[in-house]
Amino acid sequence: MTAFVFNEVNFDNHEQVVFASEPKSGLRAIIAVHNTNLGPAMGGCRMWNYATEAEAVRDVLRLSRGMTYKNAVAGLPIGGGKSVIIGNPKTDKTPALFEALGEALERLGGRYITAEDVGTSPADMANVASKTKYVAGLGDRGDPSPFTALGCFVGAQAAVKHHFKRDSFDGLTVALQGLGHVGYDYARRLHEAGAKLVVADIDQNSLKRAQEEFGATVVDVNAIYDVEADIYAPCALGATLNPDTMNRLKVKIVAGGANNQLATPEIGEVCRQKGILYAPDFVINAGGIIKVCYEYNNTPEDGMDAHVRRIGDTLSEVFARADAEGVPTSVIADRLAEEKFKK
Amino acid sequence: MTAFVFNEVNFDNHEQVVFASEPKSGLRAIIAVHNTNLGPAMGGCRMWNYATEAEAVRDVLRLSRGMTYKNAVAGLPIGGGKSVIIGNPKTDKTPALFEALGEALERLGGRYITAEDVGTSPADMANVASKTKYVAGLGDRGDPSPFTALGCFVGAQAAVKHHFKRDSFDGLTVALQGLGHVGYDYARRLHEAGAKLVVADIDQNSLKRAQEEFGATVVDVNAIYDVEADIYAPCALGATLNPDTMNRLKVKIVAGGANNQLATPEIGEVCRQKGILYAPDFVINAGGIIKVCYEYNNTPEDGMDAHVRRIGDTLSEVFARADAEGVPTSVIADRLAEEKFKK
Repeated sequence: MTAFVFNEVNFDNHEQVVFASEPKSGLRAIIAVHNTNLGPAMGGCRMWNYATEAEAVRDVLRLSRGMTYKNAVAGLPIGGGKSVIIGNPKTDKTPALFEALGEALERLGGRYITAEDVGTSPADMANVASKTKYVAGLGDRGDPSPFTALGCFVGAQAAVKHHFKRDSFDGLTVALQGLGHVGYDYARRLHEAGAKLVVADIDQNSLKRAQEEFGATVVDVNAIYDVEADIYAPCALGATLNPDTMNRLKVKIVAGGANNQLATPEIGEVCRQKGILYAPDFVINAGGIIKVCYEYNNTPEDGMDAHVRRIGDTLSEVFARADAEGVPTSVIADRLAEEKFKK
Repeated sequence: MTAFVFNEVNFDNHEQVVFASEPKSGLRAIIAVHNTNLGPAMGGCRMWNYATEAEAVRDVLRLSRGMTYKNAVAGLPIGGGKSVIIGNPKTDKTPALFEALGEALERLGGRYITAEDVGTSPADMANVASKTKYVAGLGDRGDPSPFTALGCFVGAQAAVKHHFKRDSFDGLTVALQGLGHVGYDYARRLHEAGAKLVVADIDQNSLKRAQEEFGATVVDVNAIYDVEADIYAPCALGATLNPDTMNRLKVKIVAGGANNQLATPEIGEVCRQKGILYAPDFVINAGGIIKVCYEYNNTPEDGMDAHVRRIGDTLSEVFARADAEGVPTSVIADRLAEEKFKK
């Protein structure tokens, strides 16, 4: 049987995969609800010019499943989901398109809550929100990036503690890739904690600011993997842990905010064998979704900072179990998620 | 792009196509909601051992779209939808399977209401109903077949009036195929109205009863198309109007309760050219869904008989418009539906 939805490799028992269309606006969206055992599914909406429907299905299923794991490990009362709009985000956007998406979400009755993602903007989400209340992170209560950065920082602290048996970053060098909202704020925290920074980005202004504010050393975007450093902090692209970079990285720890850092699951084992302590991406970068979830659920935010800081405790547990069982940290992180969300 | 969901030939702007799964029971179902402009979508649930997911998608989209047209022309406050369970109805049924379907329907919040269909039984629907109220025609208020039969009868009356310019069946011969719940009751009404009956079925008991009760002449199942008759009444198989039978039928009217009578849409034009007045299947056989809809919506049933009888008026309109415009009755029936359900 041809891989399709039920037989797609990433299907993994999704509760619902909804193909939604609306002819006037031209909406063609796929909404994937992977698991709602812990609560309604939350995850962003991508807009992308997929070449085939099969490619869109594959992407949404993979991302939706990932959100279940991320949200579960973060200890949030939400499940995992994701949506994709098939179209070119540069040329095909109209308010009507996102309003039609809002109507499609409204029909799901709150089982899936969307948010901004690759190819969509706060303005797009405002159009979605004109038709449904099932939109999170509308930005009216601030950017979640600082919380992602905080999670990365406490995650890096936990990794340093585990690997170097110390509490301080004094004298440690961090090779940080990507000075966007998350990366820049993470860099600031590392700098304030005493770390030396080597940074790479394609944006010259960000590099200049990092040099001036943090005394960072700048390297070429292609040279960041070869830096003599203690920690590699990927905060931009996905799949930067791959066969090529695994032969180049000289670090002892990988701790960054990027999504989907492992090019393939097997790279987790490669890290283990090379003695590189990998802080699993979906565990360490959950600060943003924690913020968004508090906001959406109107949870009093006085406990939010402590919640994000628990990412450090979670990672300490992941590292300890991985050592004890002799398996990759990525495998332990998946298990931890499954212990929480599986009935 | 490969035909999939959005690009499948039968997609026709379905509002929602939901892939629902539940691992413990093994449920893999596709729920298609074609159009809800007139109300929540209503249509049966098939269970079938589809060879591929693509085949299941094609079937559910085609059937779901058909329900929008049928329900709209019948003047019902409901839209069109359908669902399919992928599996062998003889070996794969469990209560848990249908309970899981019920949970999947519950998640759609009432946008789709299911009912018994090919491969599912009242017992299966009772299991669905243990998890959701979105199930119609549970049989606790009687069999809808007599209402389908009544619709066929008033439809045949309208056809006789249009073609033969007369109100009576006296002396007319009806070749009736299929003496199931609908066909037998339709035969009784035709007999009581003075028609002569020639019948075919594979069930010998039904044939014997029809001979005794209605004085019907019995012919072989393969000979029904060759009978010298005024009306052909298909009440069993689909696609009995096809290139082969179009060369054999000697009738002036086709008026029966079977679904999907035209093997291809083009057969509608063949009927027109041969001077055969075809009562479009989804118009004439809507009596059952009218009954089920009244039941489900708790509509007072004192107007129900008149509602079913309006099928005759609708067909008179279809026949007149088809004559006036010189197009097949099947095309006019589609247009009539679209005038009602399209925004």
